Amino acid sequence: MKFDLPKTPAVQVPGKSFRLDQVDPDDSTPFVHSPDDKSEASPRLLQLRERLSQLQELLYAEHKRSVLLVFQAMDTGGKDGTIKNLLTGVNPAGVRVSSFKAPSAEELSHDYLWRIHAETPKRGHIGVFNRSHYEDVLITRVHGLIEEKTWKRRYEDINNFEALLAQNGTVVLKFFLHISKAEQAQRLQARLDNPTKHWKFDPNDIKERKLWPAYQQAYEDAIRHCSPAHAPWFVVPANQKWARDLAIAEIVVAALEAMNPQPPKAIYDVAAQVIE
Amino acid sequence: MKFDLPKTPAVQVPGKSFRLDQVDPDDSTPFVHSPDDKSEASPRLLQLRERLSQLQELLYAEHKRSVLLVFQAMDTGGKDGTIKNLLTGVNPAGVRVSSFKAPSAEELSHDYLWRIHAETPKRGHIGVFNRSHYEDVLITRVHGLIEEKTWKRRYEDINNFEALLAQNGTVVLKFFLHISKAEQAQRLQARLDNPTKHWKFDPNDIKERKLWPAYQQAYEDAIRHCSPAHAPWFVVPANQKWARDLAIAEIVVAALEAMNPQPPKAIYDVAAQVIE
Repeated sequence: MKFDLPKTPAVQVPGKSFRLDQVDPDDSTPFVHSPDDKSEASPRLLQLRERLSQLQELLYAEHKRSVLLVFQAMDTGGKDGTIKNLLTGVNPAGVRVSSFKAPSAEELSHDYLWRIHAETPKRGHIGVFNRSHYEDVLITRVHGLIEEKTWKRRYEDINNFEALLAQNGTVVLKFFLHISKAEQAQRLQARLDNPTKHWKFDPNDIKERKLWPAYQQAYEDAIRHCSPAHAPWFVVPANQKWARDLAIAEIVVAALEAMNPQPPKAIYDVAAQVIE
Repeated sequence: MKFDLPKTPAVQVPGKSFRLDQVDPDDSTPFVHSPDDKSEASPRLLQLRERLSQLQELLYAEHKRSVLLVFQAMDTGGKDGTIKNLLTGVNPAGVRVSSFKAPSAEELSHDYLWRIHAETPKRGHIGVFNRSHYEDVLITRVHGLIEEKTWKRRYEDINNFEALLAQNGTVVLKFFLHISKAEQAQRLQARLDNPTKHWKFDPNDIKERKLWPAYQQAYEDAIRHCSPAHAPWFVVPANQKWARDLAIAEIVVAALEAMNPQPPKAIYDVAAQVIE
C-alpha cells in the first residue's frame, strides 16, 4: 500500500520509537489549504467526500478488493462524529459500519478475533470498525484482565491477522483520534449540560478517565508494535473536529486513489446479446 | 403501524383482490407537488432526505425500535438506484444494506428464513434488503423448483416471521418497484450500449425476461397473500425514476414520523456527575 501523504508529524505513521506525547492534539496545520478549511463543511472536505463517493462506486463495481477503516479513541474522542462526517454521502449499500461493544457470552466463548473476523468487509465494500480488536490490548490491559505476556502475544496475533486481510485484498487503515485530557473534560461536560445529549453520557466514563495515563501508554505500545506498512496506524490530532475530519478524508481518498479501482470488463459476448 | 399516505391507486397497499396489471408503471401523478419534482434531485426529494437523516439519528438514539425496508423488482427494476437515492445522505452507522444473492451451500443447509433472520436490523437501525425471503416464493416457483403447496405454506411462514419482527419493534415496509416489460428492454439495451455498464448486464437476464408473465403472477400472488397491516407491500410505479424515488421517500419518512422516535432520558443522576 503506497500512497502520498502530507509529510508532517501531525499525521504520523509510527515506528518502534513512536511517542504519543509528542503529537499535539491541537495541531491543525497539516491539511489547511485555505482559511475556509476551518469549518465542518469546508470546500475541501466536500470535494473529498464527493470523490470518496465516486471511488466507492468503482470499488464496488470492481468487486475484487476492499477497504477496512479502524477507528479508536478515548471516550468522546469523536469516533461516531468522524464516521458520520466521512461517510454520510457515500452509498450505504457499499459501506458496513460495525460497532464493537463489550463482548457477549457467545463471543467470549470464542477467541477474541472471531467476532472481528466475521465483520471484515466483503470484496467491493468499505468496512468501518467503531472500536475493534485493539480493545483486547487496551481496556483488558488497563484493567489488569490480561498479563503482559498476553498482550505482547496479541500484538503478534493482530499483526498476523491484519497481514492475512492485506494479502487477500483488504487495505487496512487505522486511525487513533488523539484528543487531550482537557478536551475530554469539556466534551463530557457538554454532554451533561445538554439534555438532548444525556443519553450519550455514561457515568462509567468518569471512572475510565482516571485511568488516562494507563490508556495513553497502552495506545502508544499498540501503535508502536502494530503498524506495519500493510496496515498502518495514523495518529490524528483530534481536538479540532474540522482538522480531524479533513485529515482522515485526505488519507482515505489518497489510499483509494492509489488502489485505482476499475469496473470489470464484460465476460460475455456483448454483440451476441439480443433483447426481445 | 398507522400513518397517512396519499390516497391514490398509484401506491397500493394491496388486498386479496389486488391485480398487478391494474397499476400503471408509468403513473407519476401521486407525488408531484410542483413541476420541479420531475428531477432526480427535486427540492421535495432533498427535503425528504434531510428529514430522513434527522429521523434516523433519533431512531438510533432511542435504541428501542427498528425499520426494515424490503426491495423487490424485476431485473433492472431499480433496486440499487432506489437504495442509493433514498439513503445516500443518511449516516451509514445506522443503516445496514443486505443483498441476497443465490444461497450458499451453508445457507441451503438451513431453512430459507435462516439467512434472512440473521440480517434483520438491530434496535435503532434501518435495515435494507436488496432482494429478500420473497425470492423463495418467486424465482423458485417460476422455475418449478417448489410445488404449489410449498409456496402457499411459505406465505404463512413469511406472514408469521414478519409478525414476529413487528411484535418486537421492527416496522416492516416492502416495496415492489413496478416497471413495464418495454421499460426493461430499454434498460437492458442501455447496459449493453454503454461499456462502463457492461458489468451490470448478465446474459441470464434475457432468459429470465422470457418468464415475465410467470413472474408477474408470482409477484401478484405474494403481494396478495403477504400484505398484513403490520408489514404492508407498496406497489410503486417505477418506469420514471424520479417518481419512484419520491414515492418511496414519502412513504419511509411518513412511517418514521408516525413512529416519532425520542432520545432516551438520562438513567443516572445528572447533577451528581463531577468531571475532574
